[in-house]
Amino acid sequence: MPDEQVIDTRPWERLHELAQAGDAQALGAFIESLPVAETVRAVSRLDADERTRIMGMLPAGQAAAVVGASPEAQAREIIGRLTARQAASILQELPSDQVVDIIAGVNDDAVQAILKEMRPDEAADARHLARYEPDEAGGLMVTEYLSYPESYTAADVLDDMRDNAERYADFDVQYAYCVSSFGDLVGVLRLRDLVLMPRARRLTDFMIREPFSVDAHATLDDLQKMFAERSYLGVPVVDDSGRLVGVVKRSDVEAALSKRAGSDFLKSRGIVMGEELRTMPVRVRSSRRLAWLSLNIILNLFAASAIAIFQGTLEQVIALAVFLPIISDMSGCAGNQAVAVSMRELELGMIKPRELAHVFWKEMQVGVINGVVLGLMVGTIALLWKGSAWLGLVAGGALAINTVIAVGVGGLLPLILKLLKKDPALAAGPILTTVTDMCGFFLALGFATLLLSRLT
Amino acid sequence: MPDEQVIDTRPWERLHELAQAGDAQALGAFIESLPVAETVRAVSRLDADERTRIMGMLPAGQAAAVVGASPEAQAREIIGRLTARQAASILQELPSDQVVDIIAGVNDDAVQAILKEMRPDEAADARHLARYEPDEAGGLMVTEYLSYPESYTAADVLDDMRDNAERYADFDVQYAYCVSSFGDLVGVLRLRDLVLMPRARRLTDFMIREPFSVDAHATLDDLQKMFAERSYLGVPVVDDSGRLVGVVKRSDVEAALSKRAGSDFLKSRGIVMGEELRTMPVRVRSSRRLAWLSLNIILNLFAASAIAIFQGTLEQVIALAVFLPIISDMSGCAGNQAVAVSMRELELGMIKPRELAHVFWKEMQVGVINGVVLGLMVGTIALLWKGSAWLGLVAGGALAINTVIAVGVGGLLPLILKLLKKDPALAAGPILTTVTDMCGFFLALGFATLLLSRLT
Repeated sequence: MPDEQVIDTRPWERLHELAQAGDAQALGAFIESLPVAETVRAVSRLDADERTRIMGMLPAGQAAAVVGASPEAQAREIIGRLTARQAASILQELPSDQVVDIIAGVNDDAVQAILKEMRPDEAADARHLARYEPDEAGGLMVTEYLSYPESYTAADVLDDMRDNAERYADFDVQYAYCVSSFGDLVGVLRLRDLVLMPRARRLTDFMIREPFSVDAHATLDDLQKMFAERSYLGVPVVDDSGRLVGVVKRSDVEAALSKRAGSDFLKSRGIVMGEELRTMPVRVRSSRRLAWLSLNIILNLFAASAIAIFQGTLEQVIALAVFLPIISDMSGCAGNQAVAVSMRELELGMIKPRELAHVFWKEMQVGVINGVVLGLMVGTIALLWKGSAWLGLVAGGALAINTVIAVGVGGLLPLILKLLKKDPALAAGPILTTVTDMCGFFLALGFATLLLSRLT
Repeated sequence: MPDEQVIDTRPWERLHELAQAGDAQALGAFIESLPVAETVRAVSRLDADERTRIMGMLPAGQAAAVVGASPEAQAREIIGRLTARQAASILQELPSDQVVDIIAGVNDDAVQAILKEMRPDEAADARHLARYEPDEAGGLMVTEYLSYPESYTAADVLDDMRDNAERYADFDVQYAYCVSSFGDLVGVLRLRDLVLMPRARRLTDFMIREPFSVDAHATLDDLQKMFAERSYLGVPVVDDSGRLVGVVKRSDVEAALSKRAGSDFLKSRGIVMGEELRTMPVRVRSSRRLAWLSLNIILNLFAASAIAIFQGTLEQVIALAVFLPIISDMSGCAGNQAVAVSMRELELGMIKPRELAHVFWKEMQVGVINGVVLGLMVGTIALLWKGSAWLGLVAGGALAINTVIAVGVGGLLPLILKLLKKDPALAAGPILTTVTDMCGFFLALGFATLLLSRLT
């Protein structure tokens, strides 16, 4: 079936045809037949106008499934380009935490227009959630949970659950919450208790009192720690006045951590202005990347100026030119290892940012050993290549010392950046490279200048 | 209260005292008073013998909480050094998927001895799970779930849940599973249905038939895709013959993804032989890091040989020595951005490994623009510094072309490595650096050789 193969490998061509034909029904059926991940990929390959058109043609539920499974950057683009009414009907189908993540990146006027088109309760939820940072409990929580007044009986709750089974289908109903008439969280109800209790028993008789809850401003780190210590699948979130405002689920916290790790990875490789998808306009992709590269060129010039200063020496000991990149690269590598371990230990909570002395001491032990070993290796290579023990001493010595510096700086940088409330994933790499390049060039060419008579 | 402050900042000193005193009760009480994360950190700061001693002194439940919250490397060390009986009593308290992760890193003889000391059913579970890779459904699933024969009634299930409420406390009981007499998965029971049904109804009357399940060998990528498309919190896992063998939970999949992202981050910065904690012996830390550095030194020599070949040219145009590291670093940066975007798009499922042409075309557009911009910047700097347009042309031209190469290679490398079933997080960085260094040196010094008469 050659036709099916074409559809299978390039479903966006079929989407394109269906969009051209304007056949909403065939489009819906085709998308229904694709796994969501394939639809997301196919939709991303269309040009922006066509993408918007197709999303507008789909029924809200189907469009929401696609938007919900899309990378955030693409979800925002889609929502931002649809009419407010279309956008609202799609967002209404998504869980509240996801709605907030998406509209956080859409411009304010558009968001207001969309909120006006949403059901008033959903819009109120979204407005409420939008007041929190995406990475704190308030931004990660969902507002889809069950809460009941403390005056209710088990029967009242079970009847409500039965009557609204449809609406609660996506809710996590293992727990329900009991609130006072002011909306304060006063207890947690386990579904299994509800089930096992006589129907007439009041909630206050069997709810878990003084339930554990987290503050709406708890950070992702706080939540990670909390879930590591407790086996809960979800925890109620209260605002400053103790009112129940949502539930933060373990899986959402895990997903946020995974997202942060992914974003750290991107940043550490120079994609620093938010996610880049290759389906974005070239202008955006190119200028975002250039912003970062331009900063790096300045740091690079700074480092390379060390070579400019010692040009005279280098001219006389030209063999050293071969070793300069080796010295800067290798100590950069060694320093990056220390950066990685510090960032990981910080994340795991195994070190605190202020424990500089501990990290320095631990890194020095490894740094000295590895510096000496690398220095001996490169020194020996220089000796064998040019037959000059002095050249070996200069190249090997510079690498050894620079490795010790790099490992120390690399180990400490993430802690110092954390203390300064800067993002280590972003800043540690370029700072380290600049330091190791500059020091490496200085050491090698400085030693060579001192030993010039032996080297020429 | 100066004493409390000491305890707060350096709890390991107090642990050390309590271990010396051998007072198990005081030790238990002190650890009870610390948040688990603090205990984990404190325990990590002790030397290995003392750590083992303290873990052996604790009641199994308390020790399990610490082991369960420890980084895997530390959990393994603790379990590996305790007696088999102590280790078994701790592991019995942990969820089955965590047990498997921990014992996967302990040597085989020790594992056999530990399994012998475990309760037969727990040992059988662990043996069973250990047959799967840690990153497939079988390795991620838990065996703590409820399953009932299809002949049961709602009342049978509810009675069992009531009778064993204690034992099921850590189970996720929102769903229970219905199995045939052969153990085949035949249906899923929703707790809320169980509750709302007349007690005498048979499970087969209201279970969800032909339930969705995943194969025990489904990969983490498969599971990520599956959970993205369905709002389930957990999914039953079946073996090749359709028997129910466990349940894989959304939160565990999210946690595994987050772990993988963390491990990719470490690898991309040269920590490649498993997690390093600074509490590990220096010998281990140093030699693991050196293994990676030694490989890089070889790649570096390879790249630097380009300079050796053109030494004569460089000697005559020594100003170019300042630009060599700038050219190799900057194009390396540009290439790394492309690597990051490819790895991210692969992870998101937005590109497939075989779509080389698509990625190449998308990268070329950005690569050419950014190459020209960077080349013009560096060329202008060279012109202004030395007043030589030819030097500017050589340095800027080499950077421009090398950036295009770097961006192309960087974009394609993760796809090619994926096609070859190699790990891009590990290999993309060093390969890219070697290529960009070598090409950069070749281009700059090659151009200089061609234009030597203009440059001197």
